[in-house]
Amino acid sequence: MKKVYFTPGPTELYSEVPKYLEEAIGNNICSISHRSSEFMEIYKQVSSSLKQLLGIPNSFRIFFLASATESMDRIIQNTVAENCFHFVNGAFAERFYKTALELGKRAGKCEATSGSGFDFENVTIAHTPELICFTQNETSTGVALPVEEIYGFGKKFPEAIIAVDIVTASPYLKIDFTKIDCAFFSVQKGFGLPAGLGVLIVNERCIEKAKSLKEKNIRIGSYHNFLSLDENAVKFQTSETPNVLTIYLLGRVCEMLNNYGIEKIRSETEEKSGMLYEFFDSHSKFGTFVKQKKDRSNTIVVADVGESLTAIKKSLLEEGFVIGSGYGKFKDNQVRIANFPMHRIDDVKKIISALDKV
Amino acid sequence: MKKVYFTPGPTELYSEVPKYLEEAIGNNICSISHRSSEFMEIYKQVSSSLKQLLGIPNSFRIFFLASATESMDRIIQNTVAENCFHFVNGAFAERFYKTALELGKRAGKCEATSGSGFDFENVTIAHTPELICFTQNETSTGVALPVEEIYGFGKKFPEAIIAVDIVTASPYLKIDFTKIDCAFFSVQKGFGLPAGLGVLIVNERCIEKAKSLKEKNIRIGSYHNFLSLDENAVKFQTSETPNVLTIYLLGRVCEMLNNYGIEKIRSETEEKSGMLYEFFDSHSKFGTFVKQKKDRSNTIVVADVGESLTAIKKSLLEEGFVIGSGYGKFKDNQVRIANFPMHRIDDVKKIISALDKV
Repeated sequence: MKKVYFTPGPTELYSEVPKYLEEAIGNNICSISHRSSEFMEIYKQVSSSLKQLLGIPNSFRIFFLASATESMDRIIQNTVAENCFHFVNGAFAERFYKTALELGKRAGKCEATSGSGFDFENVTIAHTPELICFTQNETSTGVALPVEEIYGFGKKFPEAIIAVDIVTASPYLKIDFTKIDCAFFSVQKGFGLPAGLGVLIVNERCIEKAKSLKEKNIRIGSYHNFLSLDENAVKFQTSETPNVLTIYLLGRVCEMLNNYGIEKIRSETEEKSGMLYEFFDSHSKFGTFVKQKKDRSNTIVVADVGESLTAIKKSLLEEGFVIGSGYGKFKDNQVRIANFPMHRIDDVKKIISALDKV
Repeated sequence: MKKVYFTPGPTELYSEVPKYLEEAIGNNICSISHRSSEFMEIYKQVSSSLKQLLGIPNSFRIFFLASATESMDRIIQNTVAENCFHFVNGAFAERFYKTALELGKRAGKCEATSGSGFDFENVTIAHTPELICFTQNETSTGVALPVEEIYGFGKKFPEAIIAVDIVTASPYLKIDFTKIDCAFFSVQKGFGLPAGLGVLIVNERCIEKAKSLKEKNIRIGSYHNFLSLDENAVKFQTSETPNVLTIYLLGRVCEMLNNYGIEKIRSETEEKSGMLYEFFDSHSKFGTFVKQKKDRSNTIVVADVGESLTAIKKSLLEEGFVIGSGYGKFKDNQVRIANFPMHRIDDVKKIISALDKV
């Protein structure tokens, strides 16, 4: 039986991906030079389709990296001389914070209780940090942050760079890019593609900050520093030979999603997450992990299932569905169900019905 | 007409790659978790097939990065506190050297005249460098270095880490890994795969060096420092979600090449390069760029063709062949013809015959 992956990522591919792959092979996409006009056309098209899909202003740059983890690293190296601040609502936000420490920065953090958001009003940041980092949709806990709260910190600290991890939020998330400075995702989540490509979206302020760090002789890295990335991106090229195939596939997926309509994707996502949360909220033995409705992610649904985890995974697998276990210390008693645009409502209903029988 | 790419890379895919891609899709390779036993099995298989193919001792680690450019960056960060030394025989060797400078190291270099190798006997390295870097097969010029000369520096400077760029040399190159410390390549060259995966092969000494740098509080990077890479590699895992699809494809290609036989690949490569060099050497208007036979690469053949470049590229394209132009300042008057295992002898003959008619 064919399996359908409702895992937080790598996840199910869009059903169109095999067709796009075949098309890429037929068009020699894997053999063309990354300095050729053919590649530059692809970069241009992806950049423009992605900007349309996510509502990214034209002035922002689209950089292609290898992973979201790399994006965290490059953002810190290129925007922080001394200090940054992190809102930590789970394992991936913690990784962002730890990356700053590994790179020798003074990093502050505000930690949320696992499964909760932040009491933003009562957060005090002593000094103005150079960079404030948010994990809008924490993949490990299913906690999402209201974008208005993120914008608030941009207003309060106009000198700071505001960076937002939108890894499992995109393309569902509607975020006003004019109120943040950079955001990043990887393509094996909501973009339903093979892993190995990270997308980093930055504004002019980030480039300027990198420039000023370099002038002060602070190390900003080598081939993937923002200046080298920018210098190449303006020509629709990359510093090194990139993952041309996946960049091409991303362009095709963005085009398809634009044709489908982002608002339709958003309302369908909320319909599906609503069904899952309703099921877990009203179940006698299982329960939604994130208690406050305002903190709940629409793309990663996490539930406490106690000892039933093994039975659940077995029973879903019999129906052809693969879902995620809990993250870290919750790996034996939680499920994490991804709810991305390629996940069909009929399949969500089948998953709920199978869960109901466990 | 289907095109065949004789470009230095990205280049022609092995004809089996579309079949392996289809197989990967069918087996859900793009959806499995990179923490799953399925992925660990893939890593294990690739690691073992690659070690068999290239004759890598079991004690070496295989790390998966995003590109050869990333490998240069990580090697310098993880093995150099202060100083390194570079043999610069072209643009890629120069990039390795510049990366060291960008990372704030004191880098020395010995530069060869373009199109020539080094007068190794008369090279003086003042102090013992922590790292000595060689570009065994310089893709920009077609100059290859004798491996014995590389081994010599390992003997002369036993404290130094010996790093070898084998990007366009592998898998053809026969190198004794016990006489060097690390080597790296990317898969869009002789491994005939889509770009987006770099392979870094390191021994215990490199890991130990990274450890000692960390103890001295010298920055070795974050998620892709050698300690994090090693910690994950021993479990057949990676620090972040890697390019799982291409790792899988690399395993299939290594398996296929092992079945075909590496010695057969080597002798066929030399037969094909011999034909190309003979043609350019005896041509009235064209000429091999690398004059000394001992300096000539068997996998990247570079020739001076003067004003005929446009006519050559046009005439080859009519026959369905794409070759590379010269690199950098030679872009208007040189050709670079790749000679990797997927390039068939019949096609090399057709290329020569087409060149002969220009």
